[in-house]
Amino acid sequence: MYLLDKLFNPRSIAIVGATDKKEKVGYAIFKNIIDGGFKGKVYPVNKRIKELEGYKVFPSVLEIPDQVDLAIIAIPIIYIPEIFDQLGQKGIKTAVVISAGGRESGEKGRKIEETLKEKAKQNGIRFLGPNCLGFANTLIDLNANFGLDKPLKGKTAFISQSGALFTAIMDWALQERIGFSYAVSIGNMADIDFGDLIEYLGKKDEVETILIYMESLTEAEKFTIASRTITPKKPIIIAKSGKSEIGQKAAISHTGAIGGKDFLYSALIKRVGALRVDNVLQLFDMTDALSREPVPKGNRFVVITNAGGPGVMAADQFDKWDTQPAELSEKTMEKLNKVLPPVWSHNNPVDIIGDAPPERYREALRILFDAPEVDGIICILTPQFMTKPFESAQVFYEVSKDKKKPFYPVLLGGEKLQKARRYLEEHNIPVFETPEEAVDSMFMAWKYKYHTGLLSRDNIVLYVDRKIEVENLFSDKKRDKQLLLTELDVKNVLKVYSIPVNPTFNAKTKEDAIKIANEIGYPVVMKINSPDILHKSDAGCVFLNIQNRSEVEKAFEIIIQNALKYKKDAKINGVIVEKQVEGDFELIIGSSYDRLFRQYIMFGTGGTFVEFYKDVSFDFIPLSEISAIEMISSTKIYKLLKNGFRNKKPVEIKTLVNILMNVSVLLQSFPEIEELDINPLVIKGNQAWAVDGRIKLSLEKRKNTILV
Amino acid sequence: MYLLDKLFNPRSIAIVGATDKKEKVGYAIFKNIIDGGFKGKVYPVNKRIKELEGYKVFPSVLEIPDQVDLAIIAIPIIYIPEIFDQLGQKGIKTAVVISAGGRESGEKGRKIEETLKEKAKQNGIRFLGPNCLGFANTLIDLNANFGLDKPLKGKTAFISQSGALFTAIMDWALQERIGFSYAVSIGNMADIDFGDLIEYLGKKDEVETILIYMESLTEAEKFTIASRTITPKKPIIIAKSGKSEIGQKAAISHTGAIGGKDFLYSALIKRVGALRVDNVLQLFDMTDALSREPVPKGNRFVVITNAGGPGVMAADQFDKWDTQPAELSEKTMEKLNKVLPPVWSHNNPVDIIGDAPPERYREALRILFDAPEVDGIICILTPQFMTKPFESAQVFYEVSKDKKKPFYPVLLGGEKLQKARRYLEEHNIPVFETPEEAVDSMFMAWKYKYHTGLLSRDNIVLYVDRKIEVENLFSDKKRDKQLLLTELDVKNVLKVYSIPVNPTFNAKTKEDAIKIANEIGYPVVMKINSPDILHKSDAGCVFLNIQNRSEVEKAFEIIIQNALKYKKDAKINGVIVEKQVEGDFELIIGSSYDRLFRQYIMFGTGGTFVEFYKDVSFDFIPLSEISAIEMISSTKIYKLLKNGFRNKKPVEIKTLVNILMNVSVLLQSFPEIEELDINPLVIKGNQAWAVDGRIKLSLEKRKNTILV
Repeated sequence: MYLLDKLFNPRSIAIVGATDKKEKVGYAIFKNIIDGGFKGKVYPVNKRIKELEGYKVFPSVLEIPDQVDLAIIAIPIIYIPEIFDQLGQKGIKTAVVISAGGRESGEKGRKIEETLKEKAKQNGIRFLGPNCLGFANTLIDLNANFGLDKPLKGKTAFISQSGALFTAIMDWALQERIGFSYAVSIGNMADIDFGDLIEYLGKKDEVETILIYMESLTEAEKFTIASRTITPKKPIIIAKSGKSEIGQKAAISHTGAIGGKDFLYSALIKRVGALRVDNVLQLFDMTDALSREPVPKGNRFVVITNAGGPGVMAADQFDKWDTQPAELSEKTMEKLNKVLPPVWSHNNPVDIIGDAPPERYREALRILFDAPEVDGIICILTPQFMTKPFESAQVFYEVSKDKKKPFYPVLLGGEKLQKARRYLEEHNIPVFETPEEAVDSMFMAWKYKYHTGLLSRDNIVLYVDRKIEVENLFSDKKRDKQLLLTELDVKNVLKVYSIPVNPTFNAKTKEDAIKIANEIGYPVVMKINSPDILHKSDAGCVFLNIQNRSEVEKAFEIIIQNALKYKKDAKINGVIVEKQVEGDFELIIGSSYDRLFRQYIMFGTGGTFVEFYKDVSFDFIPLSEISAIEMISSTKIYKLLKNGFRNKKPVEIKTLVNILMNVSVLLQSFPEIEELDINPLVIKGNQAWAVDGRIKLSLEKRKNTILV
Repeated sequence: MYLLDKLFNPRSIAIVGATDKKEKVGYAIFKNIIDGGFKGKVYPVNKRIKELEGYKVFPSVLEIPDQVDLAIIAIPIIYIPEIFDQLGQKGIKTAVVISAGGRESGEKGRKIEETLKEKAKQNGIRFLGPNCLGFANTLIDLNANFGLDKPLKGKTAFISQSGALFTAIMDWALQERIGFSYAVSIGNMADIDFGDLIEYLGKKDEVETILIYMESLTEAEKFTIASRTITPKKPIIIAKSGKSEIGQKAAISHTGAIGGKDFLYSALIKRVGALRVDNVLQLFDMTDALSREPVPKGNRFVVITNAGGPGVMAADQFDKWDTQPAELSEKTMEKLNKVLPPVWSHNNPVDIIGDAPPERYREALRILFDAPEVDGIICILTPQFMTKPFESAQVFYEVSKDKKKPFYPVLLGGEKLQKARRYLEEHNIPVFETPEEAVDSMFMAWKYKYHTGLLSRDNIVLYVDRKIEVENLFSDKKRDKQLLLTELDVKNVLKVYSIPVNPTFNAKTKEDAIKIANEIGYPVVMKINSPDILHKSDAGCVFLNIQNRSEVEKAFEIIIQNALKYKKDAKINGVIVEKQVEGDFELIIGSSYDRLFRQYIMFGTGGTFVEFYKDVSFDFIPLSEISAIEMISSTKIYKLLKNGFRNKKPVEIKTLVNILMNVSVLLQSFPEIEELDINPLVIKGNQAWAVDGRIKLSLEKRKNTILV
């Protein structure tokens, strides 16, 4: 951190590659720094010239007579390893590598980056880049980049993984008069990455909010640890691109980084208590909302409006968040009745009617601020015939200041509202342009609050418990390169970790099968038990609803016949006979391994149509009970599980939480589980059965990874 | 229409209620008209005063010496019936009723509105309002409303059902320099409604696009007929609020109008070839997009960009439309390879790299405009170090003019792009602020094109065929007030209209049941047949998977027992025995009656979880084959039906179309069908069976309604 502080708050800077050629990046950076008003020392470095705009130019950093804190480097990347050695000799410990030609340009570039990393390690250097635009620190008037006009001062830090968006957003922010303390183009993250910057910037008093445009992470754990420390105190707001598969493809080919699947990013951002927004514009909406107003304590919001139409629009938008405007208590209604004209809406949205003077807003707002059933207020004003926008804005400020509930005014109109808009902005109140924007922002603020709240109650522990039976089974399978386990093996593994399965046995003969069926009770299901036949249904090797002895006999014969028909030399272990269970819901619990995120876990609606409905949620190993509950409750089917549905009774959620926790322990204990699928997990009330499952092992050596 | 032309293009106007009291609406309207520069004659009418701002004031319209085309009325609503009589006497045939106090204020107001309508009929008057703000016609400089600053001239007509939004949007448009030919606050639509205005404005040369803010319709047929005539020539773009149930509740209580369910509005808007947008801002995005650029012929779009990040954002947004950026042909790729630097993305988004000069945009754009596999181009520019925004904008204009493909530039940034932005706007090219906006707009333009295309090929015929068996059955049931039909009756009705059902029979005795089961073949399903037991499963009166004679006997007994346990005096007609069919997919076809939209039809994913997944589409009676195909293909399950899924084979879509068409004929023939549910409709390949169904009849007399 000490080194990062040298990098972002240097007293002296060497600019390696500073030049008098105005079309070159080396000139642009030099010029931006000296024009920006930086008070520290600036040393241009270039062998070819002696002087640059009145500054003495040095042929090498080694010739600079004074101590240098930071080197900014804009020369062809292949010469930089040598420069790093010179920095080491000179005792310069931080660098910004502007130059492109790193791994974004292919295999050769990737190797150069490796060399850079080694040289940096040898010389004790921390560096930003390569392939970045530089950074700005407005606190010391340091505009150390190419492409940015000098940013305005503010309390926000911005980190961008895309150089083009860095320029575009900073340019747009200038136009909108939005200020920053730090703005960093992070580049290829060969050394300094998101985790480092979040840790460093998060500790600065001059940073109240961290905004990130992210394409991909290189180190998930570092990001996780840094973010979890910061988010309880300061919001981290992330716009991540690469949502669609195509997007992802482009993101990966674009940055050359190790990417993960987008839904895992969402899960991780949630897990660390940060806020993911949909696009870059929302970054700023949310900065305004979170830095200017308190966060809502719950999601019971009220809409007050002087116009019905926009009120309806706001109410419509609640639907997107799967909830409704707060129900007002009788007491609140009575109070409102006293101050509002009789034709008011008598409902939330609180329509105080088109002729509302400022005084009516004041009285109604006071009541709503006092109402304990209200967690936040969205206040719509349209310029109608009798409306006094400016005086209303003054009332808004007066009644909302010092209040502990968020207040988001929406000024819907143009010319007539400009003065009111300016007044609110000057008084540090966020102004929204549409009801939809305000509603979305308030729900996002609440989600942010909610997730950081989860975090504070969370208790994640790595709990490794390698049961010897499973250890032995996996060893055998790995030795034999039988990496895909049979259903029977899978169920045995699950049972060891107390994950309930329906009684399942292997029958070698027809007589065996009858005996098993009699023991477990009819109806039974029979399937082929063969490592060579994966898609048993396709092969005609699954029979359901077997009701009696004669049907067992018949099924046994046909299954063996069909198996051999399907694959002549299939190895047949026998026929599986299992109890047919009737549950109310079919769920899925799954896990897979991702290079970046390691083992993750999935929960959701199961059955044949899993991939079609995609009603699933994700989290990582190890799971806490709170995460497990959150996973379950963030699926759509949760509503049905909790409340029941038609003739299906409610399910005991605790049963599911326990199963998820047990799956988590199994996964923690065996990082070699590459894939796990329990589908369907059939449940009815507090009884559940893993009815089918698969496990695939990996031969890779993997350590336990903790994303906490 | 002649009268509407008098209303909106009057040569002389009487203002009833014009006053010198400046806080009154009557003053504001008078002032707006004379300040707006209206060239026709203006006659203020008021008993109390003689003169108003230099105009002679008349005590009554009857005293006005000249002919008057239009009366604008702003006096308490209770006096207006009398004024209507005076208008009749004076020969004034059109009016704008500004006054509030109509049905929006309750029962009393509703009655006054009825009186107004009668008086209008008696005197041959057409009128706008009540409870409206008036209108503006910029072609004759007539600003006949209160609350609007004089709008700019343009080619767009705007109709708003909310007065507040009328003011807010027009105020905002003024700030954004957007112009209009007509702007109308439609009010309560006691007489002139959406249908009238769409018909009138749609025929005007000065109207190229109609924008509507809608809360509810009062007459669906009039709207339908008018819109279907206009949309093939001019876009109608509709923002409708009241999407959520809560929203709907608010909309109804707000306008006091007869409302319908929001999904039916969506279906109707689609059916008439109009475009529904999500919010009011999109109204203007789409006006720009549709009026300035050609509509795309397909949905194969390309993104070209000088920055990877924004390219990914654009690609992400394609996901929302369930599609991907167009695949570029080898030929196009070869051409691009020749003009682009080797590191270009080699993919769509076409990333032409951050240092792209205007010339590179020109060459790449020419190739993309020529590529037959591309229907539209989204072109992103960010202000990077080497970028020349203004010169690039000139290139954009040059290469895109006279082209038959839409070209939507996205200028991502602020200060540095202002000149380029202004240039494009002046050259009539729409400019977008974010990649997401541009992608959404292009897909909406395509949807608009697509739906109007459907329309032109559509052939909707009312085909009434009241089969005598069904006629008789329904008569009996209505006579006996047995409005809910039993499963057996429903299946008989369906069979008459060639809708396939699984073999289903009633067994009065155990022996009957065995005989039936033997005939139709095992396995069978058995259920109670009782008009008194609707929820058969809950009563324990449904048995599946019955495999043999002894199980039939057992099931028969238990069903009767359970039925009597469930309801002691239940009328029992017997036990239904039906063939258990195994299909690949469970679908639903349903219908219900709505006061506004009449009979509508629903298709989608069926089974127990219908309401949960809500994967359904809606249309109206009568259905055309094209509508039926569109209904099927706009569900999510369509993909699976068409392509098959795992071991489920593709379904013959024609089979489903035929069933939908037959259901449509049944519904057309019997408007007394209040509700119809076929759930599940089980299908496998080209075989389908209605496995369960219900029909509820209405005693109301209903005429056949045609929403065509």
